[in-house]
Amino acid sequence: MISEIITIGTEILIGSILNTNGPYLSRKLTDFGYDVFYHASVRDRYEDIRDAIETALTRSDLIFLCGGLGPTQDDMTKQALAHALNIDLYFDEEEWRNIRDIAMAHARTITDNNKRQAEFPKGAVVIPNDKGTAPGCKLNYGEKVFYLLPGPPREFEPMVDLIIDRYLEKTTGENFIESLRLVNIGESNCEDIFRKEKIENDIVQINTFAKTGEVEIKIMAHSEGEEDYEETKRAFDEAVEKVKSLFAYHIYGNGEKNLFETLVQYLASRNMTISFAESVTGGLLAHMITSVPGSADVIKESYITYSDQAKIALLDVSADTILDKGVVSSEVAAEMSRGLYARTKATFCISTTGEAGPDTATDREAGTVCYSIRKNGREVDAEEKIFRGDRNTIQFRSAKNILATVLLQELGGEYGRE
Amino acid sequence: MISEIITIGTEILIGSILNTNGPYLSRKLTDFGYDVFYHASVRDRYEDIRDAIETALTRSDLIFLCGGLGPTQDDMTKQALAHALNIDLYFDEEEWRNIRDIAMAHARTITDNNKRQAEFPKGAVVIPNDKGTAPGCKLNYGEKVFYLLPGPPREFEPMVDLIIDRYLEKTTGENFIESLRLVNIGESNCEDIFRKEKIENDIVQINTFAKTGEVEIKIMAHSEGEEDYEETKRAFDEAVEKVKSLFAYHIYGNGEKNLFETLVQYLASRNMTISFAESVTGGLLAHMITSVPGSADVIKESYITYSDQAKIALLDVSADTILDKGVVSSEVAAEMSRGLYARTKATFCISTTGEAGPDTATDREAGTVCYSIRKNGREVDAEEKIFRGDRNTIQFRSAKNILATVLLQELGGEYGRE
Repeated sequence: MISEIITIGTEILIGSILNTNGPYLSRKLTDFGYDVFYHASVRDRYEDIRDAIETALTRSDLIFLCGGLGPTQDDMTKQALAHALNIDLYFDEEEWRNIRDIAMAHARTITDNNKRQAEFPKGAVVIPNDKGTAPGCKLNYGEKVFYLLPGPPREFEPMVDLIIDRYLEKTTGENFIESLRLVNIGESNCEDIFRKEKIENDIVQINTFAKTGEVEIKIMAHSEGEEDYEETKRAFDEAVEKVKSLFAYHIYGNGEKNLFETLVQYLASRNMTISFAESVTGGLLAHMITSVPGSADVIKESYITYSDQAKIALLDVSADTILDKGVVSSEVAAEMSRGLYARTKATFCISTTGEAGPDTATDREAGTVCYSIRKNGREVDAEEKIFRGDRNTIQFRSAKNILATVLLQELGGEYGRE
Repeated sequence: MISEIITIGTEILIGSILNTNGPYLSRKLTDFGYDVFYHASVRDRYEDIRDAIETALTRSDLIFLCGGLGPTQDDMTKQALAHALNIDLYFDEEEWRNIRDIAMAHARTITDNNKRQAEFPKGAVVIPNDKGTAPGCKLNYGEKVFYLLPGPPREFEPMVDLIIDRYLEKTTGENFIESLRLVNIGESNCEDIFRKEKIENDIVQINTFAKTGEVEIKIMAHSEGEEDYEETKRAFDEAVEKVKSLFAYHIYGNGEKNLFETLVQYLASRNMTISFAESVTGGLLAHMITSVPGSADVIKESYITYSDQAKIALLDVSADTILDKGVVSSEVAAEMSRGLYARTKATFCISTTGEAGPDTATDREAGTVCYSIRKNGREVDAEEKIFRGDRNTIQFRSAKNILATVLLQELGGEYGRE
């Protein structure tokens, strides 16, 4: 079953809204075992909608038309569909009563325009919409099936859920998907490694996706039915195991939780705490941790010490060290984390000092980041690294790299065995 | 010039990422005076990319292919384009040197796979990418023009800007565009206000774009040539003035600098400093400031005091106040900012305490944020507000709202007159 999603709306084409309907539906269909091969977006223009429908008919079995079911003249999805398929529209008295009831319940004004919303292509099955005055519909056309849905996400999303729950046939097959998240490794390096091991085959596909400071590996397989279920599952499981063991020292999770959630939950489950003395990362490390629900258990306090004076007064960094070694140095980072531990006694005390650029205040290159990680007061890692990119990228990459390092050291490459 | 944007990537079709490239490019092209009529997304599959190109050739003049320029086997946009147009790829020695230099500068491993990134369709003009190892290119094909761009947004967006700046032909006529950025007002409220004033007309269009915690109003007009230039300009200027005076107390800038840059530059130019005592915002306020180049002049130190103990020890908040009023209260916020001023003497001392949710530790509702703003030690603003959304949205909206409040109070509604 090849599926296609056509989103209709001039506002999408001029970039004035982000199309969230396509991704929402795509994800739900994929999880339900359907293959979405095409997305298309066209303006609220009769000919464009009709052409998009005609193109879809040549390549897809299941076609979703999203948007253009409103009451106004620029809502013309049903008209364009009827024209493309050469069928008539009919006026549904019962739906017209429903629409008036819903409008009344939502305290909306109803006009003669709304009558268009009670028109449907002949043979369509109406799909109710209790969030608004635009009912959806399902239309069989030979072997093809069309679904029409309203555009506003708060009406669209519940209708997608309803369609999957009640209208869509369960696919014969099953999709196997495993998503693994890796840090401290580049995408192309990552792909090199698994290609060399020839893990992909006729059954199992692997995709890599680069995100800022991390790589996602998605392992996928599809079983058509009972005949190939066992074989597919075995091949899939084997591939997952291989990837896990290949990247054991880089994988931090399985795609459901991000790095920060994973770290916070790890720390919380072991009654560990964390605190920061941030210079170059300027609060970002603390923010990454506090962005996670429940983080109050693992972070009690944290410091941003941007100036030399703050480093000296708050963290007891020696003025001599700053003078001798420079404020961007492993020595200063070590004294910062030491002073931090004296204040907070957190399990992990982490300090950063560096140059985020573009201009620099010291003789160190923009992108230089020194950090010191202390566990129970003892320095367990201290590095000086160069990160590339603009100021925000340098801050983001270095902060993520530091948290990834903490987590990976703790997991000890044992993710695959958890 | 009919434009079409084809985004390539299985991750889009399975709904695992939101396609932000299409909207970004659409918007930039629209602003530049081009008409975008079609968006299409296809998987990383040779035939699908080729078919999408063939469809685009039947209906569009200017075709953008986004993504699939990476080093790996599932990156095949150039190959599919060459096949669709029946032209060859060539290997560009100079680009290969560039790619290796960039990889080296970004401290990335380079492999033989990366050689694919130095291949281009014959006749293509290479578009440099200094953010990564995937150069883009421009290819003329009869009357049609193709642009190929890399998929990662941090490489894609600068290349879009570069293409518009240096490669794309100016449309005939002139586009008038003014973009105004507003804070502390909702989009639909905003639209209601300017619609009521009937500022839009045959010449001037206005669009609003909602972003997290701010609204952009875009005022646009297009003059075809000398005949209508004066009239268009007059109508446009008039509309801009009207909008500025309508929203004088919400506008913080004209779209070139974000809120944080505007605030940091404002503070720096007046030798003012800022510091924070953050509980509910957990470092985000400091991060927003330190994300701006040159912020070291305005922020010297800052505190994240998540626990009651930290508030008491570091900021001298009275334990009795916490007990009597609750830790999420204006009284505690006021004591926090007072203690902060005692420590840092910053011009602006700002504290936050609240519940970011989803679970709460106090009897206050998730989304409750109390803040206190002190200028030269005197409390100039203290509010308790409820913000809606998930944890990150609550943190982001409240932090942005606070910084917007500081800036708007300083600007005093005089933006329009600056």
